[in-house]
Amino acid sequence: MEVAQVLHMNGGVGDASYANNSLVQQKVICLTKPIREEAIRSLYCSTHPRSLAIADLGCSSGPNTLFVVSEFIKIVEKLCRELNHKSPEYKVFLNDLPGNDFNNIFKSLDSFKEKLCDEMESGIGPCYFSGVPGSFYGRVFPYQSLHFVHSSYSLQWLSKVPEGVDNNKGNVYIGSTSPKNVVRAYYEQFQRDFSLFLKCRAEELVEGGRMVLTFLGRRSDDPSSKDGCYIWELLATALSDMVLQGIIREEQLDTFNIPQYTPSPSEVKLEVLKEGSFAINRLEVSEVNWNALDEWNALDFESERSESLSDGGYNVAQCMRAVAEPMLISHFGEAIIEEVFCRYQQILAERMSKEKTKFINVTILLTRKA
Amino acid sequence: MEVAQVLHMNGGVGDASYANNSLVQQKVICLTKPIREEAIRSLYCSTHPRSLAIADLGCSSGPNTLFVVSEFIKIVEKLCRELNHKSPEYKVFLNDLPGNDFNNIFKSLDSFKEKLCDEMESGIGPCYFSGVPGSFYGRVFPYQSLHFVHSSYSLQWLSKVPEGVDNNKGNVYIGSTSPKNVVRAYYEQFQRDFSLFLKCRAEELVEGGRMVLTFLGRRSDDPSSKDGCYIWELLATALSDMVLQGIIREEQLDTFNIPQYTPSPSEVKLEVLKEGSFAINRLEVSEVNWNALDEWNALDFESERSESLSDGGYNVAQCMRAVAEPMLISHFGEAIIEEVFCRYQQILAERMSKEKTKFINVTILLTRKA
Repeated sequence: MEVAQVLHMNGGVGDASYANNSLVQQKVICLTKPIREEAIRSLYCSTHPRSLAIADLGCSSGPNTLFVVSEFIKIVEKLCRELNHKSPEYKVFLNDLPGNDFNNIFKSLDSFKEKLCDEMESGIGPCYFSGVPGSFYGRVFPYQSLHFVHSSYSLQWLSKVPEGVDNNKGNVYIGSTSPKNVVRAYYEQFQRDFSLFLKCRAEELVEGGRMVLTFLGRRSDDPSSKDGCYIWELLATALSDMVLQGIIREEQLDTFNIPQYTPSPSEVKLEVLKEGSFAINRLEVSEVNWNALDEWNALDFESERSESLSDGGYNVAQCMRAVAEPMLISHFGEAIIEEVFCRYQQILAERMSKEKTKFINVTILLTRKA
Repeated sequence: MEVAQVLHMNGGVGDASYANNSLVQQKVICLTKPIREEAIRSLYCSTHPRSLAIADLGCSSGPNTLFVVSEFIKIVEKLCRELNHKSPEYKVFLNDLPGNDFNNIFKSLDSFKEKLCDEMESGIGPCYFSGVPGSFYGRVFPYQSLHFVHSSYSLQWLSKVPEGVDNNKGNVYIGSTSPKNVVRAYYEQFQRDFSLFLKCRAEELVEGGRMVLTFLGRRSDDPSSKDGCYIWELLATALSDMVLQGIIREEQLDTFNIPQYTPSPSEVKLEVLKEGSFAINRLEVSEVNWNALDEWNALDFESERSESLSDGGYNVAQCMRAVAEPMLISHFGEAIIEEVFCRYQQILAERMSKEKTKFINVTILLTRKA
């Protein structure tokens, strides 16, 4: 499986699209706002730039794509008012793998800009948007061309499934029954990928540039602990049941592995220290319910959502489907997809009725050293 | 009709796609290569830049999209060898309206870069690609951020259908029977649009930056002369026949106008002089057969094409369909499209058998003044 070819959120705006199933990701972005606010304020106040280049890595395609950009611009404009500065020029780079639905983003840009201008009564500086396709595990931007880099719920994706995980039977990611060599292979792939990421961004960011990264991660130091793996273990359960019933061949399940690693805060910190280009300003852990609607009270669009969305199992299954469907299709074919997610939904609903199920988020704020 | 919403070449890679029906446009790009070569050489030699930012405006989506980029990089790399310079860094901006199929371009970038590296044995400088959606009749890029701007067969498209052309009955563009006020309205729209284009590019280009623009145009000073209008007059004939047969309502035809203007060399020159930011280095006229395959011998992919492509009427109708179909659908609906192009093909074949039918290209090379 070529990750760069098959890892992309479901495109379009249909029922199974990422655009319509990304509330969890949105909630995580809301949770981490204070850290971005701190980053943007300190960036602006230390440099007073006339032109600000910001990049969102793994921008996907949906309501979240421009959320952080909008927030960034609003914070800077507010600072400009406070300090009586002229608005800067904004260069906004939206990055994702080439399979991402950039067309969909591009069609929404005009109305996004209009809305933003309406919201900011005193106007905003000129904004220049571009889409930048390519893996962030390699150089994506010119030398020292960025002031601020953001990435949320993307860096847990590895550049590839690690080698040497052939004996990870019955699992699709690290699971409680995974052999030690599998856990090690996943961790080492994370180390290689994340340190390459840091090296590339160090070349692309200006000195003093800030970076806010949020991983789907875990609290525990044990990579096979439940908080990082459970959501995939339940998908493996659905697939295993289908193996038992002869719908999927055992060998097919055994060769399917998700190219993901959910790191702990200390694993993230270690790579940053080893790479050496960045100072760590903050490192935080937060959590969000699997079913984002569970505790979602503050945002006003809840009321617009239909009652069917209160079905937690359905919501979480749809969220995972928007993320994982292209990979599953590429490996198992299209025919089994409905069945997989129908079973997964039931398993999820059953687990969620019995225990508090949460995603763990690891967020780090970094400054490019001089 | 909102031009920015409906003006886009047919997407995808099917039979009616622009990607598969853009030989004329490719031939024009080949014809104008010497002018670009001159522009790139003089740009490089006068500035020796470490980083080169180039933009293709109206890049579309197909084999032509990256053709000019590839040529640009090859010319610069050759110069670097000659002068014993290190390769620069390339920033490549691909611009078109938001409805353009950018996804298709982005998916082809990896193989494009691989092929380019294979062709250039001694390697090339790092290349950073981005897609930039937006109308070039407005600012698209940050202040002084570009070294070279290219646009081929895009600038004849106006920002909108001019106002005051309600009495252009039986025509879809300027035709031999168009009233004088219609001709004037089209020309004035061209003047407004092109001078705005020049003003925006003057802000985006660095001093000494070069711009090579090719219009679908005409030789004659008379805007209603055949060389600029004939191709659309024949489409109007097909539509008029359908009005006579009651398939299209007359009022529908009378309210359909193509947002295009095919300028003469002196009209292009006049706007550049009036705007004042650019020096004119070259202004040339060339021509290409409606059926690009007619004289296409030099390029080796001809042999791969099936015999059916030797049907000139079909080729030209498909070429025009790839360009005009979204606009026609937006105005007339989808139901009549097959019928229109079937009739158009017959009319084209009949005319092409009786006369030499050519598109006229106006190319201008400009340098941003200090």
